[in-house]
Amino acid sequence: MKTKKKKLNMVIAQSGGPSMVINQSLVGAVMTARKSYQVGEILGACHGIDGILSETFIDLRKVSVKSLELVAETPSSALGSVRRKPTEEDCLKIFDVLLRRDIGYFFYIGGNDTAETVHIVNTVAKKNKVNIKCFHIPKTIDNDLRQNDHTPGFGSAARFVALAFMGDNLDNLALGGVKINIIMGRHAGFLTAASALARQRPDDGPHLIYLPERPFSMDRFADDVKGMMEKHGRCVVAVSEGICNESGTSIAAQISDGEKDAHGNVQLSGTGALGDLLSRELKARLNIKRVRADTFGYLQRSFPTVASRTDAEEAFSAGEAAVVHAVSGEVGSSSIAIVRRESKKYAVDYTCVPLRSVAKDTRHMPAAYINKAGNDVTAAFIRYVTPLVGDLPVMGRLM
Amino acid sequence: MKTKKKKLNMVIAQSGGPSMVINQSLVGAVMTARKSYQVGEILGACHGIDGILSETFIDLRKVSVKSLELVAETPSSALGSVRRKPTEEDCLKIFDVLLRRDIGYFFYIGGNDTAETVHIVNTVAKKNKVNIKCFHIPKTIDNDLRQNDHTPGFGSAARFVALAFMGDNLDNLALGGVKINIIMGRHAGFLTAASALARQRPDDGPHLIYLPERPFSMDRFADDVKGMMEKHGRCVVAVSEGICNESGTSIAAQISDGEKDAHGNVQLSGTGALGDLLSRELKARLNIKRVRADTFGYLQRSFPTVASRTDAEEAFSAGEAAVVHAVSGEVGSSSIAIVRRESKKYAVDYTCVPLRSVAKDTRHMPAAYINKAGNDVTAAFIRYVTPLVGDLPVMGRLM
Repeated sequence: MKTKKKKLNMVIAQSGGPSMVINQSLVGAVMTARKSYQVGEILGACHGIDGILSETFIDLRKVSVKSLELVAETPSSALGSVRRKPTEEDCLKIFDVLLRRDIGYFFYIGGNDTAETVHIVNTVAKKNKVNIKCFHIPKTIDNDLRQNDHTPGFGSAARFVALAFMGDNLDNLALGGVKINIIMGRHAGFLTAASALARQRPDDGPHLIYLPERPFSMDRFADDVKGMMEKHGRCVVAVSEGICNESGTSIAAQISDGEKDAHGNVQLSGTGALGDLLSRELKARLNIKRVRADTFGYLQRSFPTVASRTDAEEAFSAGEAAVVHAVSGEVGSSSIAIVRRESKKYAVDYTCVPLRSVAKDTRHMPAAYINKAGNDVTAAFIRYVTPLVGDLPVMGRLM
Repeated sequence: MKTKKKKLNMVIAQSGGPSMVINQSLVGAVMTARKSYQVGEILGACHGIDGILSETFIDLRKVSVKSLELVAETPSSALGSVRRKPTEEDCLKIFDVLLRRDIGYFFYIGGNDTAETVHIVNTVAKKNKVNIKCFHIPKTIDNDLRQNDHTPGFGSAARFVALAFMGDNLDNLALGGVKINIIMGRHAGFLTAASALARQRPDDGPHLIYLPERPFSMDRFADDVKGMMEKHGRCVVAVSEGICNESGTSIAAQISDGEKDAHGNVQLSGTGALGDLLSRELKARLNIKRVRADTFGYLQRSFPTVASRTDAEEAFSAGEAAVVHAVSGEVGSSSIAIVRRESKKYAVDYTCVPLRSVAKDTRHMPAAYINKAGNDVTAAFIRYVTPLVGDLPVMGRLM
């Protein structure tokens, strides 16, 4: 006869940059926990670990299913976010709160820095013999988490980028010249690469794609654009905010004011400086009259109504899987990873991997996804990314 | 007994900045012309009057209805665009082409500069006794055409701006600090003002809105932001690219490289310089750590899938009305203007107004739409703009 396990309370929080579907993971976890007889209170900590430290909680058992469903479809982080790397002292304070409130489960949704935080909390907990299960639920539009085929949030941001390029390519077709679009992605070029999905006809842009995985040279860039202007009479360019020169120095960081977050990341987004720099260089070198640059900025992670259905469903499932695994008692503290099946039809599994294997370091675009010249993607990348983004509308053309 | 009028050929073209629904006007005109017994050939000139001068035409009778319907739903200008102010010599060359091809109708879709072009062509035609009916079909996301209650293209761009602010407001709620968004609109603040539609709860941003209709002072701006930071602990700001100082000088133009188009307009879009300037000023003056700026750029006029249905239908009807009026024989060369009915339920009429009454000069936000402090809109503006944008999704919130 099975003995009934003691109910334990849980806390869940969100951290790092928001996404269009991070609330799907939150709601997936909460809905699952609400159905589990092993979970007592379900507390949402506001603004990540700051909310645990200040004991600013929302009782997520009291929120109606209708409200939760609405939150799931809403972009950004409904519990608020934070960029804070906990010290050992922070961890001890966190345990104080958790133990006092009989919390046995800690779920934290975010990217590699968030996984690092969960790993730190878990390590300090073990060292201090605090019995708490810590789960990291993946999220990042950058798609740069190790162990994951792809991450919740990426498919929707990629869909935004693809749609934006579909419209912008036609805008450029109408008025000509060079158009540069700067896309998010600190170390990994996946999101910038997704711009290639905008191509529906042979002359469609983006005509050039620059990723952080390949050194960026202003000379080669100008030559590439010149070539495309000769070929198409116009040129649409996708550039990652994270592009670096031969010695690995970020082009954007060279011209930024050097602001850094708690994890040591230099501010790249929320400024148009990189696009403007590239515009000026092209105007000066190539004598092209019309050069424009847009920086997609925060819209690509927070714009409502364009989320990929696949991405939304997977984000929900990742949250669900974390709670199922945590209460199962079969695994210890872990990170949920999305693994693609080897099947012909697209399908994924949600597995548990060690926290340290996801924390801190990021993954990059595999070489097989980048063309030889380092200014475009390959057909292998298109095969990889297509199911994550969903069907895209067909653009009508007369010319 | 009615005598059958001679069939005349028609040419149609697009000019100025593209929009999400300018192709609706094109297709509205073409579908109507295809059903008219008075219209012979239907030629689409590529890249506006450049296409007439170079005789680069597309036979729009030969395009399938299915293709035309797809084009109608596609953003940007399917015939290509141009920014060219014709000289008298250009006009004479244009007449040469038109007369040789038996063209009796010229339709040109665009904003105030486009209307000016139509007015010039029409004036030179009259002077030279060339018998051609010239019609201007309105389009501008800036919503700044005189004689019009609003213009095709505005409702969809306004919808994009409202959606962007809905997501971005929640992004700012999650991570805090100040977020500045720069919005298109050279002389008129309508599009920037539409950001106010993003507000669903009392604390929702945009918390401040700066329009070109009111002088912009960096001191007052910093004070306003400081006040909102004290009130909400965060601040989302909507700023028009066209803001000017007390003496009427554009803030963006002061820091741009002074590039101008054929109509004398300084380049404001396609650069993040204004947002970056405002960010730097706030950081320096207020000691706020997190200040970010995004410039929405060309996405707000070309992003697929977000067009307002009302806007799309009205754009189609404006194109339809131009052809109906042109072939009716009851009016001379004109511009189509959208007039709102005084009815309780939202409805509009499409009337003919003199070309010169729409050309060149633009209209601005009425004083009744701007608050006393000059940093927000009024309830009257919200009543005005709501039916143009259509229903917006409800954002779910936990905090």
